[in-house]
Amino acid sequence: MGENAGLNEFVLETAEKISHLEIQGARNVAIAAINAIKQAAKRSKTKQKDAFLNELMDAKAVLFVSRATEPLMRNAIRYIIQAVKSSNKTNVTELKDFVSQVTTLFLERLERSKDKISSFGSKRISNNSRVLTHCHSSTVTNLLRKAKLDGRKFEVICTESRPVFQGRLTAKELLDSGIKTTMIVDSAVRHFMNEVDFVVVGADAITSEGNIINKIGTSMVALAAKEARTPFYVATELLKFDPVTVLGDFGKIEERNPKEIWNNPPHGLIVRNPAFDVTRRNFIHGIICEEGIMPPHSISELINRKYPWILEKI
Amino acid sequence: MGENAGLNEFVLETAEKISHLEIQGARNVAIAAINAIKQAAKRSKTKQKDAFLNELMDAKAVLFVSRATEPLMRNAIRYIIQAVKSSNKTNVTELKDFVSQVTTLFLERLERSKDKISSFGSKRISNNSRVLTHCHSSTVTNLLRKAKLDGRKFEVICTESRPVFQGRLTAKELLDSGIKTTMIVDSAVRHFMNEVDFVVVGADAITSEGNIINKIGTSMVALAAKEARTPFYVATELLKFDPVTVLGDFGKIEERNPKEIWNNPPHGLIVRNPAFDVTRRNFIHGIICEEGIMPPHSISELINRKYPWILEKI
Amino acid sequence: MGENAGLNEFVLETAEKISHLEIQGARNVAIAAINAIKQAAKRSKTKQKDAFLNELMDAKAVLFVSRATEPLMRNAIRYIIQAVKSSNKTNVTELKDFVSQVTTLFLERLERSKDKISSFGSKRISNNSRVLTHCHSSTVTNLLRKAKLDGRKFEVICTESRPVFQGRLTAKELLDSGIKTTMIVDSAVRHFMNEVDFVVVGADAITSEGNIINKIGTSMVALAAKEARTPFYVATELLKFDPVTVLGDFGKIEERNPKEIWNNPPHGLIVRNPAFDVTRRNFIHGIICEEGIMPPHSISELINRKYPWILEKI
Amino acid sequence: MGENAGLNEFVLETAEKISHLEIQGARNVAIAAINAIKQAAKRSKTKQKDAFLNELMDAKAVLFVSRATEPLMRNAIRYIIQAVKSSNKTNVTELKDFVSQVTTLFLERLERSKDKISSFGSKRISNNSRVLTHCHSSTVTNLLRKAKLDGRKFEVICTESRPVFQGRLTAKELLDSGIKTTMIVDSAVRHFMNEVDFVVVGADAITSEGNIINKIGTSMVALAAKEARTPFYVATELLKFDPVTVLGDFGKIEERNPKEIWNNPPHGLIVRNPAFDVTRRNFIHGIICEEGIMPPHSISELINRKYPWILEKI
Amino acid sequence: MGENAGLNEFVLETAEKISHLEIQGARNVAIAAINAIKQAAKRSKTKQKDAFLNELMDAKAVLFVSRATEPLMRNAIRYIIQAVKSSNKTNVTELKDFVSQVTTLFLERLERSKDKISSFGSKRISNNSRVLTHCHSSTVTNLLRKAKLDGRKFEVICTESRPVFQGRLTAKELLDSGIKTTMIVDSAVRHFMNEVDFVVVGADAITSEGNIINKIGTSMVALAAKEARTPFYVATELLKFDPVTVLGDFGKIEERNPKEIWNNPPHGLIVRNPAFDVTRRNFIHGIICEEGIMPPHSISELINRKYPWILEKI
Amino acid sequence: MGENAGLNEFVLETAEKISHLEIQGARNVAIAAINAIKQAAKRSKTKQKDAFLNELMDAKAVLFVSRATEPLMRNAIRYIIQAVKSSNKTNVTELKDFVSQVTTLFLERLERSKDKISSFGSKRISNNSRVLTHCHSSTVTNLLRKAKLDGRKFEVICTESRPVFQGRLTAKELLDSGIKTTMIVDSAVRHFMNEVDFVVVGADAITSEGNIINKIGTSMVALAAKEARTPFYVATELLKFDPVTVLGDFGKIEERNPKEIWNNPPHGLIVRNPAFDVTRRNFIHGIICEEGIMPPHSISELINRKYPWILEKI
Repeated sequence: MGENAGLNEFVLETAEKISHLEIQGARNVAIAAINAIKQAAKRSKTKQKDAFLNELMDAKAVLFVSRATEPLMRNAIRYIIQAVKSSNKTNVTELKDFVSQVTTLFLERLERSKDKISSFGSKRISNNSRVLTHCHSSTVTNLLRKAKLDGRKFEVICTESRPVFQGRLTAKELLDSGIKTTMIVDSAVRHFMNEVDFVVVGADAITSEGNIINKIGTSMVALAAKEARTPFYVATELLKFDPVTVLGDFGKIEERNPKEIWNNPPHGLIVRNPAFDVTRRNFIHGIICEEGIMPPHSISELINRKYPWILEKI
Repeated sequence: MGENAGLNEFVLETAEKISHLEIQGARNVAIAAINAIKQAAKRSKTKQKDAFLNELMDAKAVLFVSRATEPLMRNAIRYIIQAVKSSNKTNVTELKDFVSQVTTLFLERLERSKDKISSFGSKRISNNSRVLTHCHSSTVTNLLRKAKLDGRKFEVICTESRPVFQGRLTAKELLDSGIKTTMIVDSAVRHFMNEVDFVVVGADAITSEGNIINKIGTSMVALAAKEARTPFYVATELLKFDPVTVLGDFGKIEERNPKEIWNNPPHGLIVRNPAFDVTRRNFIHGIICEEGIMPPHSISELINRKYPWILEKI
Repeated sequence: MGENAGLNEFVLETAEKISHLEIQGARNVAIAAINAIKQAAKRSKTKQKDAFLNELMDAKAVLFVSRATEPLMRNAIRYIIQAVKSSNKTNVTELKDFVSQVTTLFLERLERSKDKISSFGSKRISNNSRVLTHCHSSTVTNLLRKAKLDGRKFEVICTESRPVFQGRLTAKELLDSGIKTTMIVDSAVRHFMNEVDFVVVGADAITSEGNIINKIGTSMVALAAKEARTPFYVATELLKFDPVTVLGDFGKIEERNPKEIWNNPPHGLIVRNPAFDVTRRNFIHGIICEEGIMPPHSISELINRKYPWILEKI
Repeated sequence: MGENAGLNEFVLETAEKISHLEIQGARNVAIAAINAIKQAAKRSKTKQKDAFLNELMDAKAVLFVSRATEPLMRNAIRYIIQAVKSSNKTNVTELKDFVSQVTTLFLERLERSKDKISSFGSKRISNNSRVLTHCHSSTVTNLLRKAKLDGRKFEVICTESRPVFQGRLTAKELLDSGIKTTMIVDSAVRHFMNEVDFVVVGADAITSEGNIINKIGTSMVALAAKEARTPFYVATELLKFDPVTVLGDFGKIEERNPKEIWNNPPHGLIVRNPAFDVTRRNFIHGIICEEGIMPPHSISELINRKYPWILEKI
Repeated sequence: MGENAGLNEFVLETAEKISHLEIQGARNVAIAAINAIKQAAKRSKTKQKDAFLNELMDAKAVLFVSRATEPLMRNAIRYIIQAVKSSNKTNVTELKDFVSQVTTLFLERLERSKDKISSFGSKRISNNSRVLTHCHSSTVTNLLRKAKLDGRKFEVICTESRPVFQGRLTAKELLDSGIKTTMIVDSAVRHFMNEVDFVVVGADAITSEGNIINKIGTSMVALAAKEARTPFYVATELLKFDPVTVLGDFGKIEERNPKEIWNNPPHGLIVRNPAFDVTRRNFIHGIICEEGIMPPHSISELINRKYPWILEKI
Repeated sequence: MGENAGLNEFVLETAEKISHLEIQGARNVAIAAINAIKQAAKRSKTKQKDAFLNELMDAKAVLFVSRATEPLMRNAIRYIIQAVKSSNKTNVTELKDFVSQVTTLFLERLERSKDKISSFGSKRISNNSRVLTHCHSSTVTNLLRKAKLDGRKFEVICTESRPVFQGRLTAKELLDSGIKTTMIVDSAVRHFMNEVDFVVVGADAITSEGNIINKIGTSMVALAAKEARTPFYVATELLKFDPVTVLGDFGKIEERNPKEIWNNPPHGLIVRNPAFDVTRRNFIHGIICEEGIMPPHSISELINRKYPWILEKI
């Protein structure tokens, strides 16, 4: 990384906001990050492609470390920089425009992915069925809204999702869409599982082994679903694939502020607050992604076929 | 049931307190109930055994319905009344004394059961091990305290136990006993299970099939324990055995106030708040009870052998 | 066995009818057999208790071999003969009366058992639930009828039960009781299992290990139920317990006429037509019997406690 | 779709025959359908490629809806039309010849696939082994015949396959090939599974998740095989892959005439007669297809590599 | 314990031999121990019952600690001392005779148990079957010999049983009995399991939970058997029940001399040599004991019914 | 195959050494084989490419049959010959050089693969963890050494690996690298599994279904790992993929000299000594290969993408 001195302020601000959870949700974080890159490009004062690229790389470095387990953001940045690198443009002015176009293109594709996921996944919501979801995922609520718009009758059970109650956001969005919604505590999932017909959750990351990383508790939902032979699906863009897992890297699961769990704990109490857990591929019936509904076991190959640039070194 | 008019006021008050959760915990409820019976007996103005018994039966009826899923309380009352019935005393004054003695005897036995459970169960807490528990059970914290007093080094992971955070009480008691304690959210149980050596929980009821009813989430802890081959034990007095389950009765699981989960839920949201769930016998390595460490599958026979009066009709 | 020459004709006829499946159903077979014993006793011309007993033993021997896997019939006979043996009556006329009384008593108890099983088991049929059963069992249809009479709303899926379509009898009985009924082929059980809330079947025999022997296909229903976490119960009198299994005997599963499967099979085809299969105890949530709802694992002990004469040598 | 008025009569007749089950078996249906297309092409009176293509599209539309769950037929038609579309021929006379050639080519490839499947799969039939199959599949009987021709000694257990007894056809074909064959009822599969060394069945469809759709009961055979650690294989052409499953479509399982199950059912009885069930990928050791023996989990990728046209929109 | 000074030398010698593995096999150790007790009694010079009893208690104490995990030996001693205690004889000469008689009685019963186990268990060895056993157990080889004598045709696979190759003893005994025998390494058990029809092993101890403790590796055999749905039985006298497990005691598994595994290990290598492992009840189809073939889950109750003295404090 | 007469002696010698286990270990065997091919090429006296190729094919044929289950060696030879075939060189002198270059290239790649595997896999060895391995694999010990060099603190449990104790070699190599090492007998794996955090083994072959073939006992380790939810990984070059498994070939598992198990077995004893067993893909969390950490289910597709020449006919 070059001197941060030269770093675009907007990039630094964005990185800080991401780091302090002012920007949340994989999609929002990715959008913010590549907009920051776009700004950095736009305001660049360099004249040479090399220097221009270096600035982008500096921005990338800062943004990459702003939060762990954000493969979508990282892949978005990888995409932009890869495009610049392999472009045969050399004029920085042209490159600035190019960055802007590529960013727009990326965001459009991301949007289309969301629509496709909703379209594919919503077909699996049967009439008169009961769906369970955990935590909040805009991909999932979108998919459910689509099913509702398509005239399907169904209801949703959502968990409250301790410690920060994202399930409440899910409940509100579903109710706003006119979907009958029930809330339960996280530990009641197994108690209700025999009455559930379909489980669908989002993902924060997909690993090379075909596992998914998602909100703490997801793997317990999956376990209870498997025990009751209830289908368990993950709705997610393929761009959540984390390429470093191919190489064996598998960062520690991020642990958040203990105060989220207990604000004034008694002296001496250790509080562990992992943000995510890992749901292994054998619990997952299918990954509902922009390429269709796929077994998690072949996601690595699918990535190779559709997004080979994710796996390339920059 | 006779006229409530004749009912001892203390009984009514106790029943009300139990009903409004002013008295909580299976053991406390049982103690309160039989003390109420003792008071009812003491203050009786009847002169005939029959009338005296009828008064006790009235008290029983009121106390029985004060809360669902309280077999310990019910068995305590069954024990007292059964004793009176089969006593060959006929003089009411003598019978009053007798009720008092029987009550004292019962409470002593209950106390001894607790000690035995601690003694048997604590031997299973190995040195340098990690124990996980869910919710709060004085039987469990007692058992862990005993292991600590016996010089064993171990640490405990306890869940917060939504919606009313009984895990915080557990944490405090364990810290007070000098036991290293970690708190996690309920849905993180599977995330930590591979590092756990032993799970022990309490019980609100034991059924004729050998299943246990305990705090919502217990069955998910058991499921995660089984998946990881982690031993799962239940520490409980046999008197939690619920004889009506023999006859097929199996009341609906009590659902508590939705406000415990979300105080100001959005309009239209259904909130389901079951207090308990069922953990089936095949998840349970052993029931740690006053008769030793036993397979749940033979508890019905054990009850027949040790407490046949539980199964008799009164 | 003594000379069959001296055997009561009625006994021989009954044995033949049982052998040729003219009398069917464990209960009907048992009733016929002990009535034959009663007749044999009534018409006896012996004057000595010893000779009288020998005649009963001859009758027993003939009836025992009339069909395999009929523990209820065998236990009924054991009960009668055991009673005569241990009676201190010596006068044959008195003994004849005694046999008659004991037979009546046994049949009354059998009837009460059926009622108890219906009473206990029907409580487990929840409102708005879907029950699945396999083959035909009067104990099961009785239990379902009781639930219907008690006002519960539910529907039943029944298998056709190849090769002899006993499921059609089940369907007719349920429809006659006003219960909504659906029929499927045997191999469709897993396809529908996720929509089933409760499975209940009868039993032809219970083994010392707590397994049950029932109509071919029962164990596949149980397997599919377990896979989907659907409760699987067996409704049966304890008198179906087969004491020879304690001693390791475990006769070959009876194979019936291949023509039941294919009347004109092509030359050279082997047709195997086992009448029963074994469902192991770990698939069974509970045995619904006259003593309540019990884990199959403790049935041997329960038999020892309640019907020790079953295990005694005659 | 254009006006049916212009539709070739032969196409309509073929569609009707398929619809009324006069043509049966995935392979036969596919052959009939593409022959119908060939005829439609041959008799076309159009002069323009566009009009010609439209006629073919009309034929396709009619044939597609003639029966549900017939991916082989649909893929055959997709193949022909795709070839015409991407051909740079514009002369209709030439195109007619081209359709004929492409049809022949397709049928030859289909034939070769069958041979390859027999060749690959038959190697897995060990000497002195016992194989179990369910229903009838010419791909499976072919494979077994090949093993027999190669000198392997083995025997086959086949189910009768209610409700329409296709197992009888299987039995006849195997006996004709000199293979020792045993028939059992469908529900006896688990009873015999411990004596089975290898299970192989056909498929009506393969889904994007790697699951297979086959004759009702297949998934129960697979479940019993898994429980007993008996290898379970599916022998099928890759062209059974159903591309609409990629997009989330997953039509209701076809339900056939209830009279197949019970010709004169009692009044009020509901009869459900699903033709197929779904066997999930985790029950399948391997898909024996023309590309070799493959894990079901990577079939989607394999289709992409070998038959990308299946996944293209026409 | 009194002064060892007063201890019978024969007792000390026996304890030493047991401790140094000069006497091996649960049965041999038990016989040696009670013979030592008999000798101690015979040579006693005390005149008072109390003193006599004290001497026996001293002998007991020494023998109890001679080896861990020897419940049969301990129960044998418990039986003798319990009999003396509850005898109303007071004359020491008479008591000496009484000890001798009781010892003989115990040994006779032990012998009869062995015969019963062979009789019950051998019936489960089917014709043309393949049986697998692990390590060496005279109870098991006896049972197999009985099946052979009864004319059954079968073969046995036995593991070599590292580190001390007790499987070689098993192989020799079986070959001497004319039984076809195959030896494999311990780790090949799963490789052959699909061809095995029945597994039977002995036991060193039975716990209150119904688990068995047996030669290291037994639990892996059980796991592989369960995976392949192969029945797994344990042939053992009920007197292997270890009463201290009721009270929660569960000694560390004995670890033997590392040199048994590697005589000259490289410097720094840790060698762990546990003699036993625990096979949980859910892996065990049945305990073949002198009371018949029983589910492990009800062994505690069976012990209470048949050998209540095992559970009494001495 | 041509006349062996013309075969290079060095090739014959190498084949013999491989056949007599003088050269061992998949990697060593492969290196020896392609060096033999290189020598054969070097010393060739032919003048025509065709004849030259025929000589190589002869060498290949001899080397292929020198040992079963050696896909790495076979793939190495396939690689060299494929390269020669597709080269447009025709001059034999040039071709000799080319063979030499290609061989060198292949060996370099093999070396790089090893490094990559170590690099990727070592990241999965967590600090303060306990790793278990079975048998000896240089790929595995390399990986563990890398983790040690990278500063990770961990310890390893290794099995002795009967019958030829390759575990001792593993133990020595690990101790030499300063890794804390414990040795156990093979059958003790399950006893220790609950204390293990990670299992990693090598492979002798990978099949088209994604299964691996490795040292006898590997599948039992995998089974015990799965039961305890312990991650199980296989570290191997993709070149261990055996292409004949695609076509259904699946040779018998090689059985080695019985004397390895028992040098002087009693007369009549059968000794079975399979060298390998099969670990199915569902037991394997990931294949750690030169392309990263991958699910075994997509290895066939990965081979197609990276090493298509493996699947081509030569």
